Amino acid sequence: MDTTTTHRPAAGRFFEDFRVGETLIHATPRTLTDADAALYIALTGARHAPFSARTFAESIGLAGGMLDPLLVFHVVFGKSVPDVSLNAVANLGYAEGRFLRAVRPGDTLRAQSTVIGLKENSNRTTGVVHVRTRGLDQHDRTVLDYVRWVMVNKRDPAAPAPGPEAAPPRLAPALAAADLAVPEGLDFASHDDALSGSPLRLEDYSVGQRIDHVDGMTVEEAEHQIATRLYQNTARVHFDALGQASSRFGRRLIYGGVAISTARALSFNGLANAGIVLGLNAGRHVAPLFAGDTVHAWSEILETAVLAPSVGALRVRHVATRNRPCADFPDRDPAGAYDPAVILDLDLWCAIPRRG
Amino acid sequence: MDTTTTHRPAAGRFFEDFRVGETLIHATPRTLTDADAALYIALTGARHAPFSARTFAESIGLAGGMLDPLLVFHVVFGKSVPDVSLNAVANLGYAEGRFLRAVRPGDTLRAQSTVIGLKENSNRTTGVVHVRTRGLDQHDRTVLDYVRWVMVNKRDPAAPAPGPEAAPPRLAPALAAADLAVPEGLDFASHDDALSGSPLRLEDYSVGQRIDHVDGMTVEEAEHQIATRLYQNTARVHFDALGQASSRFGRRLIYGGVAISTARALSFNGLANAGIVLGLNAGRHVAPLFAGDTVHAWSEILETAVLAPSVGALRVRHVATRNRPCADFPDRDPAGAYDPAVILDLDLWCAIPRRG
Amino acid sequence: MDTTTTHRPAAGRFFEDFRVGETLIHATPRTLTDADAALYIALTGARHAPFSARTFAESIGLAGGMLDPLLVFHVVFGKSVPDVSLNAVANLGYAEGRFLRAVRPGDTLRAQSTVIGLKENSNRTTGVVHVRTRGLDQHDRTVLDYVRWVMVNKRDPAAPAPGPEAAPPRLAPALAAADLAVPEGLDFASHDDALSGSPLRLEDYSVGQRIDHVDGMTVEEAEHQIATRLYQNTARVHFDALGQASSRFGRRLIYGGVAISTARALSFNGLANAGIVLGLNAGRHVAPLFAGDTVHAWSEILETAVLAPSVGALRVRHVATRNRPCADFPDRDPAGAYDPAVILDLDLWCAIPRRG
Repeated sequence: MDTTTTHRPAAGRFFEDFRVGETLIHATPRTLTDADAALYIALTGARHAPFSARTFAESIGLAGGMLDPLLVFHVVFGKSVPDVSLNAVANLGYAEGRFLRAVRPGDTLRAQSTVIGLKENSNRTTGVVHVRTRGLDQHDRTVLDYVRWVMVNKRDPAAPAPGPEAAPPRLAPALAAADLAVPEGLDFASHDDALSGSPLRLEDYSVGQRIDHVDGMTVEEAEHQIATRLYQNTARVHFDALGQASSRFGRRLIYGGVAISTARALSFNGLANAGIVLGLNAGRHVAPLFAGDTVHAWSEILETAVLAPSVGALRVRHVATRNRPCADFPDRDPAGAYDPAVILDLDLWCAIPRRG
Repeated sequence: MDTTTTHRPAAGRFFEDFRVGETLIHATPRTLTDADAALYIALTGARHAPFSARTFAESIGLAGGMLDPLLVFHVVFGKSVPDVSLNAVANLGYAEGRFLRAVRPGDTLRAQSTVIGLKENSNRTTGVVHVRTRGLDQHDRTVLDYVRWVMVNKRDPAAPAPGPEAAPPRLAPALAAADLAVPEGLDFASHDDALSGSPLRLEDYSVGQRIDHVDGMTVEEAEHQIATRLYQNTARVHFDALGQASSRFGRRLIYGGVAISTARALSFNGLANAGIVLGLNAGRHVAPLFAGDTVHAWSEILETAVLAPSVGALRVRHVATRNRPCADFPDRDPAGAYDPAVILDLDLWCAIPRRG
Repeated sequence: MDTTTTHRPAAGRFFEDFRVGETLIHATPRTLTDADAALYIALTGARHAPFSARTFAESIGLAGGMLDPLLVFHVVFGKSVPDVSLNAVANLGYAEGRFLRAVRPGDTLRAQSTVIGLKENSNRTTGVVHVRTRGLDQHDRTVLDYVRWVMVNKRDPAAPAPGPEAAPPRLAPALAAADLAVPEGLDFASHDDALSGSPLRLEDYSVGQRIDHVDGMTVEEAEHQIATRLYQNTARVHFDALGQASSRFGRRLIYGGVAISTARALSFNGLANAGIVLGLNAGRHVAPLFAGDTVHAWSEILETAVLAPSVGALRVRHVATRNRPCADFPDRDPAGAYDPAVILDLDLWCAIPRRG
């Protein structure tokens, strides 16, 4: 390094810096412990029993306990930010997300992303980057694998566009139930519905059913910053009020994962037994969330499946809003336009006990 | 479930839904760990040595450490909210609270409540529900047992009133010292006054003495929300700024337990050796606390007792205020009306070392 | 105690209460755990790999993991506040700070301070107190040792001034590299630059080089309060909005350690491999930081050294600002006056891997 020039270490990659096929090793492995479980509860309001009580986890076959799959997701996602999305304009979507192993307190996660698609936008100033991100544990086992795509600025609008061979692969609109991995040992045969908070099991839900999660949760600046730092996500838009003052929104944006986790926590009201997320089929951050906003959510059952004698699966669509209760299920109109209050449209597979 | 109807899973019980004698099993057991101890310190400012240092706890006979009894109280209380007080108008009081066993990091708590009294109010739109709530550990041992009563809305004002046989039992105005359970192993013979922060022991206090705790602590929205979610308390009034905008107060109310823990943390100034709460004789949330308010507290010694060769007990009344220092001990006037700054009037038994 | 008089237990020491040579035993030992590590990350944005992942720590020879030395510093500092600086007007400086042993999750820290210098100010209403503060672990081993000096109010301006024999000793402007303690076992031979987040090692830095850390971090009231309570620092100026309303600044001041930790977390951008702080040469809180302010930082390499075959050391000056990016390195002018945005000027020694 030259002492006369400035070192700018955190410029991040621009669109023309990505190459299809390259794998980015993300920094800062992280050992997740009971502390992360407690902080996740304190920051989101999560109440699903398998992640709240070691004894409950063990009663359903999860020796050593289990961390909330969404906590795992946020940590893995956070690691990818400095390499993938520091210059992102927008986080466009997720697909083909599979939670392959239960992560236990004490496990250490690291992450890496492979670039699987590049497509320049017609304005030539931005492009869309597709990556497949993997979270790995201390034994190099993949615990999570998902695709996300982001719109990224070009450094130089004149930089050449990637060729058609760089186009992203066709992605599955949703995982098939057969593609889901049941956490090792999971067995709902002794599931205690009183302690889990609901008697509702797979057979109590039907496709098309809609559930209002009733409660509202207001999010404060300190809360989303603490959560997003816990995940070691460094996207500046979440933390730099000074820099954001001159941005399009004029203020900090809340990390989309906070909206996801808040919606999931609210979904306990009606889906208390569907805590274990197995798949992330699709997800869209429809609109930004800001500090002071109150989040509500509703859900729709999209699909049901049987995975094992005691284990069923619900494919659930979670819709979250800002500053609007969901008793009337705000949604897209027939032309596909979202109700202006909608901030999140998320499509997940979750494990759920079957009737004995 | 019918796909054409809305599932409203979190409506909560109304007054006419309670029956004397029924026991409600509360959901979501919780394993408390060192993380909860650290978060409790970070959120309240607690400094009592037995809950701050494993070594200190072990020096007073508490092998494996001990979690702050008030942390245990808030977690047990929080579990009871969805079943008892989701439609509560007011949390009216506590009585006969006994901390029966030390809870150690790693223990798992669950909770249940038995309805012990029902009395309709003369307006016929609300009633008072008395419950005895128990916290149990992973070995089904009761660690905490207390009575609380709440005013709950009726769903239907025309619903019949409970008969006189449902009237609540007579409650003790305070526990007798003989009713207190000394935590197993507790022995202050080697108590280190320098490390605990005070030379004051049982013999240094006298009935009637009043202590100003001097410091003030301002509470922010993010802080009380994080704490209340840590306890998995779901009362909407604490979290939903949008819903509260049209409420009587126009804003979120802070969980009364935050006032209790803040007052206790402040009481370190003068009562540093009285950290281990043994009994909750009575408690009244005199007025609400809001974000931005500054809490002060003062205490009065109500009673002293000897429990074991090295273990004494102080019965202490903690009074907390909002936005008013307590150098002149704001209190009730002769007619019983509280100084308008008072928010909390709490009557506890605490263990304290005796002189050797 | 007299029941008719008020007990004011938290008055703190005034200038005339200190005696050179006396050692103050600070209260409230604290067992630091994985929870403190996670909270420190969540509250500061820290990303240095040795404190984030147990596996990474062990890969560089730190069996059992290692807590961030600045977390250790804040906890030890916090314990000294009630005895040293409760009536402080200003925290003036630090010197000769040595981190002597790695502190592991599960270790218990306590602290004590020896008064090493007293000098009355010419206004006779205040004086400067120098203390040497030590942090000790559960085996009574010193883990941290540093000098700090504070300006403290006199209770009585007429109290006699200390004599010239009480004058503070001459302090080293900086530790020599030979005075640094390398944590037991530390060996960077297998250091993984991909996981640590940077290929830059000792040889990549040169004296005089300046590094802009780019990102900005906005600090909220709830965040600094939670952090400062985690450290059990009781200085009223950080917590009492009501009391501060009539102060010189009219509002709460943020604990200077929050500025230090924020600057350190930001310094990951450019100094990712310099996480392990070995020495605190000097430090000055140039101006206060308030909630809502955005912190930026830049650094200058002051000195480099070789400590062991794989272990180098960088002496780094961190400068932090409020509400001003650091691309042009705001600093002191030739007359020694700081740019008005500067809040912190800190001089540290940090370990860094050498090229193999």
